Amino acid sequence: MNFQDELKKRTEEIEKVLESYLPAEEGFARTMAQAMNYSVLAGGKRLRPMLILETLRMFGGEEKLAYPFMAAMEMIHTHSLVHDDLPALDNDDYRRGRLTTHKVYGEAMGVLSGVALLNYAYEVMFTAFDLKEAQGNQACVIQALKVMSHKTGLYGMLGGQSVDVENDGKPMSREMIDYIYENKTSALIEASMMTGAILGGASEEEVSVIEKAAGNIGLAFQIQDDILDVTSTAEELGKPIHSDEKNHKTTYVTLMGTEKASQQVKKLSDEAVELLEGLNKKNEFLFTLIRELVGRRK
Amino acid sequence: MNFQDELKKRTEEIEKVLESYLPAEEGFARTMAQAMNYSVLAGGKRLRPMLILETLRMFGGEEKLAYPFMAAMEMIHTHSLVHDDLPALDNDDYRRGRLTTHKVYGEAMGVLSGVALLNYAYEVMFTAFDLKEAQGNQACVIQALKVMSHKTGLYGMLGGQSVDVENDGKPMSREMIDYIYENKTSALIEASMMTGAILGGASEEEVSVIEKAAGNIGLAFQIQDDILDVTSTAEELGKPIHSDEKNHKTTYVTLMGTEKASQQVKKLSDEAVELLEGLNKKNEFLFTLIRELVGRRK
Repeated sequence: MNFQDELKKRTEEIEKVLESYLPAEEGFARTMAQAMNYSVLAGGKRLRPMLILETLRMFGGEEKLAYPFMAAMEMIHTHSLVHDDLPALDNDDYRRGRLTTHKVYGEAMGVLSGVALLNYAYEVMFTAFDLKEAQGNQACVIQALKVMSHKTGLYGMLGGQSVDVENDGKPMSREMIDYIYENKTSALIEASMMTGAILGGASEEEVSVIEKAAGNIGLAFQIQDDILDVTSTAEELGKPIHSDEKNHKTTYVTLMGTEKASQQVKKLSDEAVELLEGLNKKNEFLFTLIRELVGRRK
Repeated sequence: MNFQDELKKRTEEIEKVLESYLPAEEGFARTMAQAMNYSVLAGGKRLRPMLILETLRMFGGEEKLAYPFMAAMEMIHTHSLVHDDLPALDNDDYRRGRLTTHKVYGEAMGVLSGVALLNYAYEVMFTAFDLKEAQGNQACVIQALKVMSHKTGLYGMLGGQSVDVENDGKPMSREMIDYIYENKTSALIEASMMTGAILGGASEEEVSVIEKAAGNIGLAFQIQDDILDVTSTAEELGKPIHSDEKNHKTTYVTLMGTEKASQQVKKLSDEAVELLEGLNKKNEFLFTLIRELVGRRK
């Protein structure tokens, strides 16, 4: 099976796991459940849950232990998109060709259902304690919870989002851009791979290596995003190009030009692969996935 | 010491616990940390953390084990107030005589710092696993986490908030009002007392009794709120009166009149006290606190 077919098959498997954890749309609060499910089921690459599962597979743990964390991670990621699209933030009416959550369910429900997704992610993660795969393994579950919450919050994604929003349209230093990318984008990539490693029984040192590699992957991914905004076509990308320039957004491309930014992507992804290879664990699919991610054209 | 002095002293102790868990205002994301702290430090009765601690004291557990949960509960409660005040929800400029968070930090930061508070609550709760008081007691911490998350989310406070927002200004059935009160208000009162009981080593049956009593207390508290809106003066209440009528809000008073609503408060609080007394545990302060809460004039 070639990589694209394998990717499709594995994405579908993740989709099934995710669906099994979504809330029922019933009772007085069914509209909130509908809004939550609407945003989660809007599609997407399911990259983060895939990174959890594939990193766990690299270390060879119990796959079922990862399921609640995979679903939770996608809920956390989705919650951030729902809030990003709100009028007070990016004010986007469409995402992936569908109306955004607040356009369908109203702004108040956009705020509340986004929060409810984040909270539900924790409810789902806590079910991991009850799995038979968690018996004798509770310390791993606790460690994974700590990583997930830390990388999601003030010291991770939400912190990055806040600095991004606060400096919207203002000139930014390289240091600040790095902070934003490392938190807004990399933090959940790190949390995904670290969670997979922890649940797979990786040692503390191995988890550190995974964190570093994932940080590089996230950063390379985000810089590639900046590059595609100026080098791709709207058809390829499936969204408007040159949007960063129009929005006076500071990016790696505006800071150092396309060529140096491309060199940076290569440097970061080479380092990431090197770090992962140094662990002497095998997962060819994961390695290909990472190379595809940073070298993508859309 | 009389009850009011004792209440003041205990509130100050809780304030210290709470402050010890607040994030440092430093680094790139310091504005977000400031916004979080601004909203938490806006004052308030600290009722929910007090209920955690006093219920734990009733069962006689390790008080320090409750600290992270007390701080987390106040963060969760505060996050809901910050979001309630947003333009898309109640659009309030002031709370407790101070500008609301989004008025000071902007709407985007209002959304994000509210979410960050909720997430930080989980980060804080997870530190409970590392306390020496938690050794050999991890199952209680896990059980408390489950209760806190469940009562906060879709099946608790957030669900109640969503139904309230969705039906704003529309006529509502008694069944729907009950649903909203039981979730928007009672759920966190239940979570507080249940968490205190669980961490205090209460049995499953005792936790059930506590849940039922707390549900009654929350409901009585909310109905008393409806009553004060029509029977109190603006001076006593410290906020505008007759606001429910002006906003065409369905309440217990509009549904059954002041007198029947008052009878309902009495019935609910009598039942709550009876349930608690049936446990044969002593905490005179807690019992007085509950009687004061439901019989309050402001």
